[in-house]
Amino acid sequence: MGSQSTDGGLGQEFTSHVIQAMGPNTTPRMRTVLSALIQHVHDFAREVNLTTEEWLAGVEMINWAGQMSNNKRNEGQLVCDVIGLESLVDDITYREASKTDKPPTSSAILGPFWRADAPVRENGTTITFNTPKDGLVAYMHGQVTDAETGKPLPNTSVDVWQASTNGLYEQQDDDQIDCNLRGKFITDAEGRYSFYCLRPTPYPIPFDGPAGKLLKLMDRHEFRPAHIHLIVSTEGYSPLTTQIFDKDSKYLEDDSVFAVKDGLTVEFKPRTGDSQAEWDLEYNVKLAKKN
Amino acid sequence: MGSQSTDGGLGQEFTSHVIQAMGPNTTPRMRTVLSALIQHVHDFAREVNLTTEEWLAGVEMINWAGQMSNNKRNEGQLVCDVIGLESLVDDITYREASKTDKPPTSSAILGPFWRADAPVRENGTTITFNTPKDGLVAYMHGQVTDAETGKPLPNTSVDVWQASTNGLYEQQDDDQIDCNLRGKFITDAEGRYSFYCLRPTPYPIPFDGPAGKLLKLMDRHEFRPAHIHLIVSTEGYSPLTTQIFDKDSKYLEDDSVFAVKDGLTVEFKPRTGDSQAEWDLEYNVKLAKKN
Repeated sequence: MGSQSTDGGLGQEFTSHVIQAMGPNTTPRMRTVLSALIQHVHDFAREVNLTTEEWLAGVEMINWAGQMSNNKRNEGQLVCDVIGLESLVDDITYREASKTDKPPTSSAILGPFWRADAPVRENGTTITFNTPKDGLVAYMHGQVTDAETGKPLPNTSVDVWQASTNGLYEQQDDDQIDCNLRGKFITDAEGRYSFYCLRPTPYPIPFDGPAGKLLKLMDRHEFRPAHIHLIVSTEGYSPLTTQIFDKDSKYLEDDSVFAVKDGLTVEFKPRTGDSQAEWDLEYNVKLAKKN
Repeated sequence: MGSQSTDGGLGQEFTSHVIQAMGPNTTPRMRTVLSALIQHVHDFAREVNLTTEEWLAGVEMINWAGQMSNNKRNEGQLVCDVIGLESLVDDITYREASKTDKPPTSSAILGPFWRADAPVRENGTTITFNTPKDGLVAYMHGQVTDAETGKPLPNTSVDVWQASTNGLYEQQDDDQIDCNLRGKFITDAEGRYSFYCLRPTPYPIPFDGPAGKLLKLMDRHEFRPAHIHLIVSTEGYSPLTTQIFDKDSKYLEDDSVFAVKDGLTVEFKPRTGDSQAEWDLEYNVKLAKKN
């Protein structure tokens, strides 16, 4: 009614009608975000002449994603990940937060396997409690500093998590104890943290839901390069969520979730004189003060 | 890695990288649809500088939609409906199917309350078995013909469903019997169908999920104008999914799901000499031959 274009089709006039239906109490930011979302969704549908059948297949995938999601799994997030959206949004958020000539350590996506309830562990202890036969142990350590001043940051939480060599995080795998390959380390007076972990290995993202179906439809593989997840946070500083990638890993160029960015690759070096670890990784982190 | 633009941000080069990751075995149509989808989703995120927090709020809504959906409810669809997407896609599909100077009856969106298993009923019988005190009964009848030749179409299924005056479809309401206000009528030798139903009344769409939350965020109401749903189908013809709207109803100009189109409003006339119904609605349908 009054929103059809002259050719009878639902063109830009219809889209304007939908956008302008928003009432006066919409917040300015919500109006901006939802106006752009509606515009792009409509333009997409018109551009490809999306049919009802195709749209319903998309709705089914969205509902399926929700139905697969629970406190151990976020399939809606994973669907976004395989089309690069989480990585893009992370990049936008990071750049907004780091407009300075002394930028903090680069961020990367959170991914769907972080747990809020990981235990705090002592520096120098291990996170690998069910080390698999093909697992290589690494000693990871480093210092957290203020990006601007270089000052060490004590009492900083280094929250770390990684998959085992079978590609599974502990919550996906009954053969791993609760919170295996996961823990929080608090930096000492000099901003230092350290722990034993696995040298990470590439693994496939879950392939049994809509994200996997999308990858199949796009004729893409499901593998991620070897990486370790980190959230580094302390009072007064912007928390850093990132991933570090083994520079010798496969899939650095074609990560299934597009998380690899310049400056996030690290080098594992042989470690000598330590019966607990074959590999050594030094990884230092710079945090930016909160605005 | 090789997909960052010169300013360090994830610009069009990143988007091209994601799109070009599709393998050679993607079907041409899938490549077209998903390339456009990825392009628009990325452009949207960049245009509004979408933050991780905002994106995660969106993911939560998608997962919530799936979790609310079951065989009686499709919340993913409802979310699309409140931003006009189902109506737009329906329009695109209809126009593709009706490029002729003798077009069939206009289509409208299916909506989330159709049931595949509605019973076939006899012409002249009723679909209102729990008529509410404030319900007005109407006798609806008409003829189904070939849009091109005007020839009557016998053995055509007229599948009809409507909400009761409390705004609920039978599957939402324990006080209505199974398949109340719902049924399939098969046209006779002259293409005619007839039944008793309620004169429809405006009602709110479900407001307890993400679609309702989206309406709140957009400061919009949840009401739909009074309407009856129909699917008319017979062998050799394109099935018609439509809705007819009472021309005297409120909300014709601001339907919460944007389904009202020109040519879909109908006039209920007083009916005399029939103790079963106060209102009369003649509604004829033209179907297009399948290509």
